[in-house]
Amino acid sequence: MTFKVTPWEVEGSIDYEKLIRDFGTQRISEELRKEIKGLAGEEHLLLRRHVFFSHRDLDKILAEYKQGKGFFLYTGRGPSGKMHIGHLIPFIFTAWLQKVFDVNVYIEITDDEKFVYNRKYKWKEVQQYADENILDIAVAGFDPQKTFIFKDSEYIKHLYPLALEVARKITYSTAKAVFGFTGSTNIGLIFYPSLQIVPTFFEKRRALIPCAIDQDPYWRIQRDIAESLGYYKTAAIHSIFLPPLTGIHDKMSSSKPETAIFLDDDELTVKKKVMKYAFSGGQPSIEEHRKKGGNPDIDVSFQWLYMFFEEDDNKLEEIRKAYASGKMLTGELKQYLIEKINVFLKEHRHKREKEGKKLVRKMMYDGKLAKRMWSLDYSDVFGV
Amino acid sequence: MTFKVTPWEVEGSIDYEKLIRDFGTQRISEELRKEIKGLAGEEHLLLRRHVFFSHRDLDKILAEYKQGKGFFLYTGRGPSGKMHIGHLIPFIFTAWLQKVFDVNVYIEITDDEKFVYNRKYKWKEVQQYADENILDIAVAGFDPQKTFIFKDSEYIKHLYPLALEVARKITYSTAKAVFGFTGSTNIGLIFYPSLQIVPTFFEKRRALIPCAIDQDPYWRIQRDIAESLGYYKTAAIHSIFLPPLTGIHDKMSSSKPETAIFLDDDELTVKKKVMKYAFSGGQPSIEEHRKKGGNPDIDVSFQWLYMFFEEDDNKLEEIRKAYASGKMLTGELKQYLIEKINVFLKEHRHKREKEGKKLVRKMMYDGKLAKRMWSLDYSDVFGV
Repeated sequence: MTFKVTPWEVEGSIDYEKLIRDFGTQRISEELRKEIKGLAGEEHLLLRRHVFFSHRDLDKILAEYKQGKGFFLYTGRGPSGKMHIGHLIPFIFTAWLQKVFDVNVYIEITDDEKFVYNRKYKWKEVQQYADENILDIAVAGFDPQKTFIFKDSEYIKHLYPLALEVARKITYSTAKAVFGFTGSTNIGLIFYPSLQIVPTFFEKRRALIPCAIDQDPYWRIQRDIAESLGYYKTAAIHSIFLPPLTGIHDKMSSSKPETAIFLDDDELTVKKKVMKYAFSGGQPSIEEHRKKGGNPDIDVSFQWLYMFFEEDDNKLEEIRKAYASGKMLTGELKQYLIEKINVFLKEHRHKREKEGKKLVRKMMYDGKLAKRMWSLDYSDVFGV
Repeated sequence: MTFKVTPWEVEGSIDYEKLIRDFGTQRISEELRKEIKGLAGEEHLLLRRHVFFSHRDLDKILAEYKQGKGFFLYTGRGPSGKMHIGHLIPFIFTAWLQKVFDVNVYIEITDDEKFVYNRKYKWKEVQQYADENILDIAVAGFDPQKTFIFKDSEYIKHLYPLALEVARKITYSTAKAVFGFTGSTNIGLIFYPSLQIVPTFFEKRRALIPCAIDQDPYWRIQRDIAESLGYYKTAAIHSIFLPPLTGIHDKMSSSKPETAIFLDDDELTVKKKVMKYAFSGGQPSIEEHRKKGGNPDIDVSFQWLYMFFEEDDNKLEEIRKAYASGKMLTGELKQYLIEKINVFLKEHRHKREKEGKKLVRKMMYDGKLAKRMWSLDYSDVFGV
């Protein structure tokens, strides 16, 4: 099976081991996981269940944290449509890292990227997606005084000098090799990587970037040029993609609504989607299922419970056994997941409605970190 | 002789006829010149003496002006160092066009371009050049209520959405073909053309761009995409380069101070430079000169008088005859030019000192047009 992973395209059945080799990243070891747990005082589900599976220099982040140098978190979102559950996961994890390490978080909303990538988008359309997405992100659990969310187009005056300094260090040949640009790539998309690299220089210490593994090419370039600019090579912690409902390979896609649960899907929609589309590891008939049992490894409902929705290890093991033995039917497993999803979405939407706007205002403009970021003159900070 | 003309490099002896053919522009005809004179009520020296020699759609500009649709002027400056006399000429001509046609002028200061083009520049250095250059430009005769001068990095928030819309219409292949980009070109320079195209869309009528002919590649691309964005193809009026002191070919270069008279050269420096470096069409000895006469066609001092410093046609003809006949010596011709230059520079510096800052403030921030430009939301204007 062939597959392709770039920041703009993920196709085919992804071989994560091959990505680690090709990208030159490292698997998160048991040891490293334990060290995080020791420092954090707890272990996040997404680490325990290997959703975050790969990294660059995470060990250095922890060492610098212990030395008191500290670090900062940076992640982002390309506002190309409404968000599904898979989009929210890195933010939930980032918010947890912020909470346990008490560090600043910078969240870049790359409206520019999505506008140049997809020529069918109108500017206002991307802005609407951006504003909706920001509301979803703002309620993922961040500290409003220590989090700065910015749209590239809105914060561009502050980003631009640094972006130019980054851009003049990156030749077309390099960008072509790393991102697979061709003669038909537009010059906006060719420049864009500069903008995604800039926030790794927001502080004079190392950034840790929680993100899906497809974003790693940016960090490879950042690491080539950071030190020559007087900054740190960024660290990153990479997640796999939450699998689409339709099968455990590939990733959820906003353009194929049957593959994803969106944050605004209502209870009935969630139920219908899971019942209709969630790929099952069960047997064709109840009789056969009772006899042979289901296969949790390829069952998307089970995998979603494993990756995100069932926090309790014992409960998860109980479900696995029941499903594998045939005691639990596919319909029952799906029903269990549906309830979990609906509880999660109800809570998310409640927060969004109740606190969303207030949190957005704080994280974008009024909070302590946001205020500081708007007051900065980057040409000074950068010292160029 | 070979030569090369791109927006970043002008090398060798320039064949302007070949440029007209290669770039696909048109020579300014006698007819067109007469039409401008008829509409303007006067003819500018730089037109009469063919310093502005080529154009695109200048006839359409005049037709639309007569129909009452009007047009606007746009030009700019890359702040890569202090300005010499050759740099000021397009601004003087633009200010004249503004005066006689009573139209808006937009002046782009491309600090971003110069920073990405030359990796040795520091950001602050380019900003200092930019601020100095703006002072020189502001006293070239513009109407402070109808002129907007902006630095790209300062006005970027307003430029960026439009620049992205432009950028996503330009493939790398096109940019490569037009600008000669290679694999070692940095991604900042590759994106930059978008920024230079944006101001041609500042008004919903045709732009007329007075500029040196090396800038034409930008307008070729602009004309390919303008109508698909709902705007007008830009018009342009191209000048030759004021020849360097050292010979009538090539162009003045800030990096070779002996080739150029800078706007801040004092009287003695002007005298020394002209006496020492101005290429002479005279004979090796006074005796020979008296007998054979000089050649004004290759004499840089005479050419400078012709192109810019001697407004009076009769006086110029008198000098030509005297020099060609040997009656006027090279030293006398140079002395005449030196006085003309020093009068011009004294006047320029007087205006710069007396009114410069006030005019800059008006044209950048406080004047009627500047205020309007800062209040605009380009995503709305653009309708994307």
